[in-house]
Parts: sequence; structure tokens; C-alpha cells
Amino acid sequence: MPAIDATDEFETLDRLFRPLAHPVWGRDLADDVGVVPSRPGHDLVLTKDAIVEGVHFLPDDPLDLVARKLLRVNLSDLAAKGAEPFGYLLACHWSSRCGWPEREAFAAGLAEDQATFGLGLIGGDTVSTPGPASFSATLLGWAPRGGIVGRAGARPGDLVLVTGSIGDGGLGLQAAQGRLELEPERIAALAAHYRLPEPRLAFGAALPGHAHASADISDGLAADAGRIAAASGVAIELDLGHLPLSAAARAWFDSRVDPEAALSFLATAGDDYEILLTCAPSAEAALMRAAEGLHLRLTTVGRVTAGQGVTVRLGGKTLALDRLGWRHG
Amino acid sequence: MPAIDATDEFETLDRLFRPLAHPVWGRDLADDVGVVPSRPGHDLVLTKDAIVEGVHFLPDDPLDLVARKLLRVNLSDLAAKGAEPFGYLLACHWSSRCGWPEREAFAAGLAEDQATFGLGLIGGDTVSTPGPASFSATLLGWAPRGGIVGRAGARPGDLVLVTGSIGDGGLGLQAAQGRLELEPERIAALAAHYRLPEPRLAFGAALPGHAHASADISDGLAADAGRIAAASGVAIELDLGHLPLSAAARAWFDSRVDPEAALSFLATAGDDYEILLTCAPSAEAALMRAAEGLHLRLTTVGRVTAGQGVTVRLGGKTLALDRLGWRHG
Repeated sequence: MPAIDATDEFETLDRLFRPLAHPVWGRDLADDVGVVPSRPGHDLVLTKDAIVEGVHFLPDDPLDLVARKLLRVNLSDLAAKGAEPFGYLLACHWSSRCGWPEREAFAAGLAEDQATFGLGLIGGDTVSTPGPASFSATLLGWAPRGGIVGRAGARPGDLVLVTGSIGDGGLGLQAAQGRLELEPERIAALAAHYRLPEPRLAFGAALPGHAHASADISDGLAADAGRIAAASGVAIELDLGHLPLSAAARAWFDSRVDPEAALSFLATAGDDYEILLTCAPSAEAALMRAAEGLHLRLTTVGRVTAGQGVTVRLGGKTLALDRLGWRHG
Repeated sequence: MPAIDATDEFETLDRLFRPLAHPVWGRDLADDVGVVPSRPGHDLVLTKDAIVEGVHFLPDDPLDLVARKLLRVNLSDLAAKGAEPFGYLLACHWSSRCGWPEREAFAAGLAEDQATFGLGLIGGDTVSTPGPASFSATLLGWAPRGGIVGRAGARPGDLVLVTGSIGDGGLGLQAAQGRLELEPERIAALAAHYRLPEPRLAFGAALPGHAHASADISDGLAADAGRIAAASGVAIELDLGHLPLSAAARAWFDSRVDPEAALSFLATAGDDYEILLTCAPSAEAALMRAAEGLHLRLTTVGRVTAGQGVTVRLGGKTLALDRLGWRHG
């Protein structure tokens, strides 16, 4: 693999990243800064997540997929707040394995998801590190003024809903690591979910006015429910009997001898990047209609009560989870 | 040193970073996002720089100084554009050396410079890495609408000016590494400059309306002059006979046998974080007055001509530099 010397950070910028610049606000990446004009009636919503090789992605993951996952885990945060993304800043901490072909693949992945999600590159930095590669992105989006859905708004009496299916991220990691015994097409589907989550931006746009609280599920359903409960000063009860499973996760579940342990794993495994929300019972139907219009599964998995913490039930029995979820260190 | 497990990233957030949150726009760091309202008549200016242990800071540098340098190298970018900073997002990629005392020191450094520069923490992420520590910050500032000073505005006939003194960053790195023979107080002054550069924010505010082009000097005077020349489609001539030196750099210079080589080193060593600008000769006096009012040195070191590239002269002789400057890889 070719060594990249310091000078090549200029060439990386010129050759690979300048073509990705936002046509106006990125200033051709020639100015150390991006400039975003104020948009009357709107708030700017910002989020910044980092990913590390060997922790958040696998050392042999293709870098185009790593780049797309980096954007998507951040886009997922914007989606859960009902914000509309438009741009990002990027920091690449390249390892010695990141020669030209790998950097080109990374830029190609960015270009693909820029087109998919309507993003432009506003600025950033590329550096090299003697350690494993890591990356961070600062994603920017617009929301109508005062309109984002926070984590702290859940109220006793609310229902708890999730988009999509739960547990595919956790199973997908095992699938990508070759640690799962399932049919090859199931393995492929789960690994693809782990490597390339789908931020729920279109559904997120339907949240304002209907949801009281929402967040994306990155650390596991139970853990992220716990964070909504803590921020809102309420308790949340989850019923694992209602956990929405993908066909692949259902096939895995059917192969397990201990259904409680299996569902507990799925509810705590993380990397789902689905939206977890609470709403008044009267808003459930409108949200269901919005999801149906997007051909997106939306499932009521629990309810909000007075109190604190998360309770997980299955068939009327309360489960004691070893841990609520996994926070990537 | 205590091991920090994954769970402790939550505790890091709660204990160390939540107290640093911007009082409104940081949303108590409870929401995965920050929300910044639009400010009529203003643009949002954003910049993102990353630093890596062993590349941009030394493995034994105290982490409070590393945190402050991280903010300052980004603030320097905003200063050079005439933007007024107000907040930032942060990504910490902690290494195994970053136990609680080190993380507390890092947070204390952030708190100190937040107070100095009027900043609040808007959001971010903390992760752990098996490699060396690295950090990035996304700094946010306001500028009057359409008012930032870019890199591309230099015109033939302009003068080239720099704030402060040149070469202290490069000498400071050698001083911090114990590779410099000078009196102890000189060594201390240079190492302090390397570890804690001074972003020229107050002077930056005087640039709009007077400067045609500006940038901060991170990669060396000659290299950053080259980037202004390239972006503007002009040539820049620098006269090293006018290079402003600090007392410590002057003492080092006086000890050298080859003045050409010594000045060439100072003009290419980088890490200065001074402002390099071009302006019409008629604007020079106003900028000098602004600098005087701030007790800041401002020196005319060259001029802009038609053509391309950077020419470096000393006493009427043109010097051939081995390299224009150092880009941290």
C-alpha cells in the first residue's frame, strides 16, 4: 500500500474532496471555513458523531461503506429531530492503510450519499494518524424555528413507538464478523444493515406536531428509551412481545432455545438507527398513516408512565436485563 | 492509569462536558444535536480542524493545554475571516492514556478557554480508540452577511502584512522537544507559543472593509502565502528582511551562522497562527492603527503582483526554498 506523506493531504483535498464541496457555502474548500447564510424562520440543527476502526467499523470494511455509514449515523440524529439535512463538515484521521485507492473509495462513498441525501461538503480537515483510522462528521440541517422534537418531552400516558425493525444492527455486526449461523442471504441482509443503516429522514419530517419526544436508536432500544425517560422525568415500559423483527432477525430468533434471552439481546444490541418516539394516544393514527405512506413499519412497543427508569416485559413477566444497551466506547 | 470502559463515555458526558454546554443552544447535551437560531443579517461561519497526538501535539503535553490548542487553532481560522466565535462541537477520540485525571484536565482546559473566548459547547461525541488520542472541533461564529474576508481576493498592487511574529511556532516545537539551545526563559516562551497560540480575534474584526484577502498561518508563511496567491490568481513576493521576529526568535537567529537558512526556516516552519493578509496600499494605515490600538505588531512583509506563485527575497537576492512549508499530515 502506498505511503501517503504529509504533502498529500493537500492533494487529497484538491483531488478527492473539492469536487464534493457545497456549490456556494463550501467556498471550494479554499478558505478554511464554510459560510452558511441565516435562513429566516428556521433553526440550524447540528450534530457530530465519530467512528473508529475496530470499534464502530471493521478493519476490513470497504471505505466507501465506512464513509456512507459515517454520514448516515449522523443523518439519523437529524432525522429523529425532524430536521432536513443540507451539508456537513468532515475530519478524516487516516491510518497507514489509507492509500490512494482507499481514500478514493471513501470519497466515492461520500459522493454517492451526498446525492442520495442532498448534501454538500462545507469544510473540514484531513490528517494522518499512526493508529487506526477514525472519522468524524458534523452534519447540518434546517428545522422550522422552535420546531425540533427533543428527548425531554415524553409525558405519562404517551405511547412508545419505533420505526422499522429492532436488532438487525446487533445481529448485523455478528453477521459481518462471521459469527452468525444463518442462510447466506440472511447473513448478507443483516451485515448490509450493520454497514449501511437507513436514516429515517422522510418519517422524521412527520414528527413535529405529533411526537412529544424522539431520538434515534444507536445504543439499543432499552438504553435509548432509558435516555428519553431520564431526560423527560418519566418511566417507560417496553413490551418485548411487540418487538418488530425483520425476516432475517425472525429466522435467527426461531433458531434460539431461549426466547427471553434472544429478545433481550435484540432490544439491547444497538446500531439500529431507527427512530424511537413517544406520542399521545390521539396522535398514533396520524403517525401510522405517515409511516404507511412511506411504506415504513411503525410499531407501538410500550408506554410512558409516571416514575423513572425502563421496565422491560414479556408476556406479563418483568425481565431483568444484564445491561440496557451498548455505548460504543 | 485507570481503564475507562465504554459505559464511562456516558459519565464523561455527564460529569465533564454537560457543565460546558451552551446555556440554550447546547440543549444540555441531552439531545444528540445542538440548535442555533438564525440571526438576521448574519452568516454562520464554520471551521473544523483535527489534531493527533504525536503529530500536532506531543505525547506528554498536558491535556488542558491540548484542549485549549484545539480550540485556538480553530479560532484562528475564524479570526482570519473576521468572524466572531460563539460555540463549538467536539469529538474526543480518547487513547488508553486518557483516564479520569486526563479527561478532567481536558475539560478544565476547555472551560478556561470557553470563558476567555465566550464559547459554549453545542454538541459532539466521545469515543475511545486503541491508537493515539486525537480530537477535532467544529467552531461556529457569526459574521455580518456577505462580510467575511476570503483567501481569493488578493489583487496585484496589494501589500502583504502579517500580525505578531513569525517562526515562534516552529521554534516552539523544537523548544518543547528539548532540541533548542537557548536561555531557559527563551525556551519557555517559545514552547508556550507552540502549545498555546493566540488567535487574533480582535484584529480579525478589523479586517472587513480593509483587507482584500486573508488567512491564518498554520503551515508556514511561505506556504500560506502560496495558497492565497493560488486562490487569487496572483503572485506574492515576500521579503525575509522584514520578517517580524520575537525576542526569543531574534536570540535564536543571532546564534545562527547562516542567516538565509535561518530566515528560510522561520518562514516555512508553520504553527504561527498569525493572520496573513493583503490590502490596497491605501488601507495600510487604517490596519496599522487598528493593530496599534490592540498593542499588536503588524508588519508589511511583501507585495502582490501579476503572475503566480511565491517568490522569497532577502537583500535583493531570490532564495530557493526547499519547501514552502509544512502541512501537518
